[in-house]
Amino acid sequence: MKDKKNNLPLYYQISREIIEKIQTGELVPGMRVPSENEIVKKYEVSNTTARKILNEIERLGWAVKIKGKGTFVQRNTVERSATRILSFTKNMIEAGYTPSTKILEMKEIASGYSALISGRQYTIKGPVLKIHRLRYANNIPMMMEVRYISKQFCPDIEKQDFSGSLYDNVYEKVYKLRLSEVVQELSAIMMDTGIKEFFDVTDAVPAFLIEGVTFCGTEMILEMEKSIYRGDKYKFTVRAT
Amino acid sequence: MKDKKNNLPLYYQISREIIEKIQTGELVPGMRVPSENEIVKKYEVSNTTARKILNEIERLGWAVKIKGKGTFVQRNTVERSATRILSFTKNMIEAGYTPSTKILEMKEIASGYSALISGRQYTIKGPVLKIHRLRYANNIPMMMEVRYISKQFCPDIEKQDFSGSLYDNVYEKVYKLRLSEVVQELSAIMMDTGIKEFFDVTDAVPAFLIEGVTFCGTEMILEMEKSIYRGDKYKFTVRAT
Repeated sequence: MKDKKNNLPLYYQISREIIEKIQTGELVPGMRVPSENEIVKKYEVSNTTARKILNEIERLGWAVKIKGKGTFVQRNTVERSATRILSFTKNMIEAGYTPSTKILEMKEIASGYSALISGRQYTIKGPVLKIHRLRYANNIPMMMEVRYISKQFCPDIEKQDFSGSLYDNVYEKVYKLRLSEVVQELSAIMMDTGIKEFFDVTDAVPAFLIEGVTFCGTEMILEMEKSIYRGDKYKFTVRAT
Repeated sequence: MKDKKNNLPLYYQISREIIEKIQTGELVPGMRVPSENEIVKKYEVSNTTARKILNEIERLGWAVKIKGKGTFVQRNTVERSATRILSFTKNMIEAGYTPSTKILEMKEIASGYSALISGRQYTIKGPVLKIHRLRYANNIPMMMEVRYISKQFCPDIEKQDFSGSLYDNVYEKVYKLRLSEVVQELSAIMMDTGIKEFFDVTDAVPAFLIEGVTFCGTEMILEMEKSIYRGDKYKFTVRAT
């Protein structure tokens, strides 16, 4: 059926094909996904495989089964306020999801970190802790972040708990720091092949690239970040006055 | 050379091919674009055509010729603050560009307009004026907007000047309205075929979709908008506190 992927189980291939239709907007929230019988007919698979396909789509949070009615595409975007200092964890809990985190890499950079954000060069003097994490909601990868944390403000940061919110659990609770301002630059990008693998998508998916700097006082840079937020999962709200 | 487009002049096809390399990031700001001689060799064209190609790329603002050095890719994104009420016109002038506007459509909708923005339904009672415009910087199409304007707050709005900023020239100067707040929802999308034509791009270009509502007092909706900002041209800056 799908030549290039024929080492993958059939149920997996077909469920991914249907999920891609949701990701690209061909199937929108509220629409019915193909029924067991429709899948049997269209893809020439057994009823068992068709059920497995629907279960897989539901398990991954893309659709929800309603007894006697069918399986429906779920509203699948999260609103994130960009004008409020807000941790991923808190944002997900407010949106009704269960957040989780996978640490991909952690290392100290002696020379520090520097980046151009919104036309200004920001620098954290070394040493900084670089931490690369993948953030999930109900086991769906939502956002990938690389953060560079000042060890001047957070000595022994590498010994802390990175499984949840750094804002709430580490900076505020452990180091008693007050986050005063976050400046972020949002770009609209296409995920490249490497990034797509992390998010378990194969199709062309747009994304937000966010580069930011967090202050814990005037001119005091606590951390800088470079994150990728899935465009099929996130919308950002801003208020201008 | 390019079969599908062979009714277009050669200089045009090749200039578009090089511009696409800039749009996709294969050529980044500061890099040299191929020289006249390199174009002659690579594309098997005359020196006259090669010069025409470089002139076209420069004319469209993608690169700048530096005497005796070559032609270099220009920094080609504009920063837009999303947390400040700011017209396109003012934003472009501050960024050093010459803004211009093309009106695509204008019509009255008797029944009004309604949209879901950041999880809340906003409604302008009819009649509203719908105005569809394409906004340019140095003749490059940057942003396409559809705005729905309350005729309750702006009677005879259709007789006003739509060639520039509505915020500055019309709402404030003509109707003496004070813009109190703008709420916007940003999505990362891929331009579809119809949109790509407006922006004169052929490749897959990411974009920001912005849906917004502008108030001229508490609960007083002056206008709503649905706009597309080119992802290869725009970055948004937000400040959270």
